[in-house]
Amino acid sequence: MDAYADALAFDPDYKKEFAPYLGDSITPDLETLLQDPEDYRAKMEDMIMKAQATIVNALSAVDNGAKFTVDRYERPNGQGGGLTTVIQDSDVFEKAGVNISVIRGDLKPQLATQMTSQRGKKLGPGPHTFFASGISSVIHPRNPMVPTMHFNYRYFEVTASDGTKTWWYGGGADLTPYYLEESDGVHFHTVLKDSCDAHNRGFYPAFKKACDDYFMITHRKERRGIGGVVFDDLAANPASDLHLKDQASTFKFVTDMAASVNATYIPIVIARKDLKYTEQEREWQLIRRGRYVEFNLVYDRGTKFGLVTPQARIESIFISLPLNARWEYKHEVADDSREGELMKILREPREWVET
Amino acid sequence: MDAYADALAFDPDYKKEFAPYLGDSITPDLETLLQDPEDYRAKMEDMIMKAQATIVNALSAVDNGAKFTVDRYERPNGQGGGLTTVIQDSDVFEKAGVNISVIRGDLKPQLATQMTSQRGKKLGPGPHTFFASGISSVIHPRNPMVPTMHFNYRYFEVTASDGTKTWWYGGGADLTPYYLEESDGVHFHTVLKDSCDAHNRGFYPAFKKACDDYFMITHRKERRGIGGVVFDDLAANPASDLHLKDQASTFKFVTDMAASVNATYIPIVIARKDLKYTEQEREWQLIRRGRYVEFNLVYDRGTKFGLVTPQARIESIFISLPLNARWEYKHEVADDSREGELMKILREPREWVET
Repeated sequence: MDAYADALAFDPDYKKEFAPYLGDSITPDLETLLQDPEDYRAKMEDMIMKAQATIVNALSAVDNGAKFTVDRYERPNGQGGGLTTVIQDSDVFEKAGVNISVIRGDLKPQLATQMTSQRGKKLGPGPHTFFASGISSVIHPRNPMVPTMHFNYRYFEVTASDGTKTWWYGGGADLTPYYLEESDGVHFHTVLKDSCDAHNRGFYPAFKKACDDYFMITHRKERRGIGGVVFDDLAANPASDLHLKDQASTFKFVTDMAASVNATYIPIVIARKDLKYTEQEREWQLIRRGRYVEFNLVYDRGTKFGLVTPQARIESIFISLPLNARWEYKHEVADDSREGELMKILREPREWVET
Repeated sequence: MDAYADALAFDPDYKKEFAPYLGDSITPDLETLLQDPEDYRAKMEDMIMKAQATIVNALSAVDNGAKFTVDRYERPNGQGGGLTTVIQDSDVFEKAGVNISVIRGDLKPQLATQMTSQRGKKLGPGPHTFFASGISSVIHPRNPMVPTMHFNYRYFEVTASDGTKTWWYGGGADLTPYYLEESDGVHFHTVLKDSCDAHNRGFYPAFKKACDDYFMITHRKERRGIGGVVFDDLAANPASDLHLKDQASTFKFVTDMAASVNATYIPIVIARKDLKYTEQEREWQLIRRGRYVEFNLVYDRGTKFGLVTPQARIESIFISLPLNARWEYKHEVADDSREGELMKILREPREWVET
């Protein structure tokens, strides 16, 4: 692991402190709201704004200082907005985006019913309002030797007509290599496991399995990548082995996960970004990017939710899609090729670290 | 229209007679079955096999004689199969496929219920078996001045436990230009209208509107292309203005529509395939191909049905996806550019022929 630790030397503070925001906060007067220690909406917005800045700065640094485009947008009628940051066609990153969004509005009764019946939420009497905020990112490097990374961390809060609040966190991070270096898989999963273990030793094994299950391209019988962690519906539950005791500790867990993004990924980019590659290897990357598109458009819950959300900003949702993708009829790889080695792991996920 | 008529001179028989099959029929002993004048399963299989050959031969001819790959596959337990024909990375066609499939099996009770409740089918008592056959095709040329074409014609038959048969036809054809030549739109729609008018003067206006409605990329507020015709649930109904009187006349209509494919499209390919284009124009084509992928993976009923069908042949379903596609963040076109002109029509469909 020393090579990875060394690679982070370019940004020795990556773990210590977040950078300032990349634009004005979405909620006006966030600073005032933050003085209330129980305002977890404000805390989340502050956290994701700082995480966005930290991650964008690290990505810029490894991409020879290339600047991200920063677009701030607001939704009408005080329903929030977002800060989308994108880099495209750059030296190291072919397309990468790190978005935050902070949305509030009325919860459709149909959605409230679904949350109750399918996810066991106890929302209190309707009509309900909701608050949803999160950071999400997909990073597609140009060099096929560098994996694509995705992560997102989000907070959801529903307020009932009698003032009852129901809240939960969700999120995760996963890696999609085109040519797998075993040590990258071990590094990525080890950082995630360490971040989880500091909060709950049961998290990593459960969230790792949830990730393998989630990123399944069912019609291909293969996963999108080599996984990571995925969790949802994380709320306070002192009686459960797989929850934390209160909102403070749950928020701290999510904060630490977001803070671990640079440590999971940046060292891998540094280690692989200058490797030579052939046209065939680039073509394989484009074919796998086609599979990425298949997953995101056919299965990804976040994308599907975004596409049916009124006044959603499609350009922000689709930063997840690669700049280029390719679909060849009956493209096949030899079992004993590097491409074939990857396919074995996509069909049969591996345990990367001992649990 | 003379230029288009002349262009068809390379294949003077395109309307008269279908070519022989490109492979063995899917159903054994099809020739024997065809002797029964009431066997519309056999008639459909024969028709689509011949249409496939006719269209593939025409596409090969305009692509300097390039050969299609022909893959025949069978589903286990006598559940049918298909004949997939594909050309990829050729001079004129970047990726094109013309598939036929002939499938039989048990109809899932859930699907039978949906057909009854959502589509008003009277299927008789279950359990039901089904027979589904069809020809479907997407043709993506390399030159951005040549539009992409899609068509499919299909037959569905459900048999109840008491022997009751319920049947219907569906299908359509639509054109997706990247740079629109008005005369191509007029030609394409005129051929479709003429083919419809020969059977029912109400078909074209109704099916043209259904096509504009169907190929909507809702999240983009734009259509996939400039339309054509779409119809579904076409069964015998002497009392309806929008149906034909019996199965013989309905089958004849579908046969004529399939027979019109070459006339709608081949002249356009011939007229545009040698036009010069710039790298920017190629990039615009790739971005529009990204939208094609979005439509097919997010909305297209045929694709979605295929992806959840057990033992579906994914490679055959995904011949519809382009060889290359591109997603740029916030790509914008000027209203007065050729790209902008196309966008206006994708947002607000046009009447191409007088009805």
